Amino acid sequence: MHAISHYQDIVTAHFKSLALKKEPKNLYEPIQYILSLGGKRLRPVLTLMSAEVFDVDCQKALQAATAVEVFHNFSLIHDDIMDDAPLRRGNETVHEKWNINTGILSGDAMLILAYQYFEEYEPTIFRELAKLFSKTALEVCEGQQYDVDFETRDDVTIAEYLKMIEYKTAVLVGASMKMGAIVAQTSVENANAIYDFGLNLGIAFQLQDDYLDAFGNPETFGKQVGGDIIENKKTYLYLKAMEFASANEKEQLLHLFSIQPSDNTDKISSVKEIFNQTGASEATQNAIQNYTFKAFETLEKMNIGNDKKAILKAFGEKLMSRNV
Amino acid sequence: MHAISHYQDIVTAHFKSLALKKEPKNLYEPIQYILSLGGKRLRPVLTLMSAEVFDVDCQKALQAATAVEVFHNFSLIHDDIMDDAPLRRGNETVHEKWNINTGILSGDAMLILAYQYFEEYEPTIFRELAKLFSKTALEVCEGQQYDVDFETRDDVTIAEYLKMIEYKTAVLVGASMKMGAIVAQTSVENANAIYDFGLNLGIAFQLQDDYLDAFGNPETFGKQVGGDIIENKKTYLYLKAMEFASANEKEQLLHLFSIQPSDNTDKISSVKEIFNQTGASEATQNAIQNYTFKAFETLEKMNIGNDKKAILKAFGEKLMSRNV
Repeated sequence: MHAISHYQDIVTAHFKSLALKKEPKNLYEPIQYILSLGGKRLRPVLTLMSAEVFDVDCQKALQAATAVEVFHNFSLIHDDIMDDAPLRRGNETVHEKWNINTGILSGDAMLILAYQYFEEYEPTIFRELAKLFSKTALEVCEGQQYDVDFETRDDVTIAEYLKMIEYKTAVLVGASMKMGAIVAQTSVENANAIYDFGLNLGIAFQLQDDYLDAFGNPETFGKQVGGDIIENKKTYLYLKAMEFASANEKEQLLHLFSIQPSDNTDKISSVKEIFNQTGASEATQNAIQNYTFKAFETLEKMNIGNDKKAILKAFGEKLMSRNV
Repeated sequence: MHAISHYQDIVTAHFKSLALKKEPKNLYEPIQYILSLGGKRLRPVLTLMSAEVFDVDCQKALQAATAVEVFHNFSLIHDDIMDDAPLRRGNETVHEKWNINTGILSGDAMLILAYQYFEEYEPTIFRELAKLFSKTALEVCEGQQYDVDFETRDDVTIAEYLKMIEYKTAVLVGASMKMGAIVAQTSVENANAIYDFGLNLGIAFQLQDDYLDAFGNPETFGKQVGGDIIENKKTYLYLKAMEFASANEKEQLLHLFSIQPSDNTDKISSVKEIFNQTGASEATQNAIQNYTFKAFETLEKMNIGNDKKAILKAFGEKLMSRNV
């Protein structure tokens, strides 16, 4: 096995040289464009790493890794249309640079292309990969729908919220790792355990995203700190605060989440104070730790060497030690 | 083998009883809705019929047939968004009844669901079906893109137009039939021949659609006669007329295709006159006949009984004898 950077280099080089069909240009150029914007390439890296955890050359998992990344970028194009987002990774979104119709159709083509990358595998592996992929892709759509639905609901429970982030984000992390296991043809137990590892780490990662959005260091956190608060987003922090809040705090928080001031400085600091006072911040940090531990526990179920377990654990720790 | 109506009954009953996951409602209700609007169910019927042509009970092809119809309806939802169409089969389109985001996301889910219907087949058949499906689905996207591109181009060739309708419409007809052949595990030659049968019939069908749109009997043709002319659509009739036209006729046609009068009666009759004068109408009817003959020729390559060939031919003749 190698360091993460090794797999990142392979993935980066692969996407640089990825040859897509050229015609019709208006269909394939937006696909080339979004794939060229880069990003962390976290998911394909996990697929490659997972293959080597189970003693298979990561090159064998490269097509599955490509499928996962192409799917992820498909979902970004369509989500950006739905969210009316102008920017993605600091560049124009596809529907802004072209138009909504182009975004819809190029996205559709990417979803299909993702399946085609599995075609290099033999029938039984192909079927397993495609089945896992379809199940996961459908869950991602369901997660996106729940996210949309939650915007106009004021009775979202913590359990519902956790299910939403599990579907929208974590299942694809789990599936990325399981695909490496499938390509390596390891045992069902190993494959399921690494899925659970990725799933729980994915939930922890998303909860941490919620936390950092409010409490992150503006200098190291990539996005605008307080963005969720400005948008009145019902994150884990908010839902926990509402659960723990006194009648008075609840009223304040509801008020703060109903206003859209031109200067958000006061709103952000008031909301953060309530998140701290109510114990929501602490509860969120605890939840992040619990899901991280849960991920690490699944390592025990894996029939792999301790060196491999140490690498997976180190990766998880690195991922979760992002600057607060 | 049975009459077409037998397969239609099976497909209709199947879609009536089709159980989709229920939650989240806002994702699955639009899917139920579009699938309940009916339509001719031509493609799944062809899949069932094709399976029995190759001596396998059509029930074995029902899941593949379902995939094809679900895919077709996915493409209708997304196309209707792109065309800003208010009505589909006399009912509100999905994006009108709900909204564009719902149309995008429910469509995405249907594309994924289509793949899942193949999962009941064993690995080698599953792989063959999914490969054919991906190739076809991508071609349908490409065809849709060419169609969009052609709207703003004035140098579209006949060859380009034929490729567009082949991709947008005919490949799915061919694939629907080939799927029946794959499920029946007939020879590669048979499977390819029935694909070509469907493909050529599909092109003939689409050219006939162009023809009927201008020259159909208003009382029996489902849509508004002259619709393509009103929208200045560059159909086969138009492209052939431009090819054959004298300088004077060309000028007239270009003018007619640049105006959008409030009353289209004169425009429609003038354009039709040019279609007749230039020989474009005759050329279109010849092309329809040629593609139909081409379809029937492929029957000769099939290693099946003459009774089966007669049934396929009768089906083709029935399809092409729609009222002019």
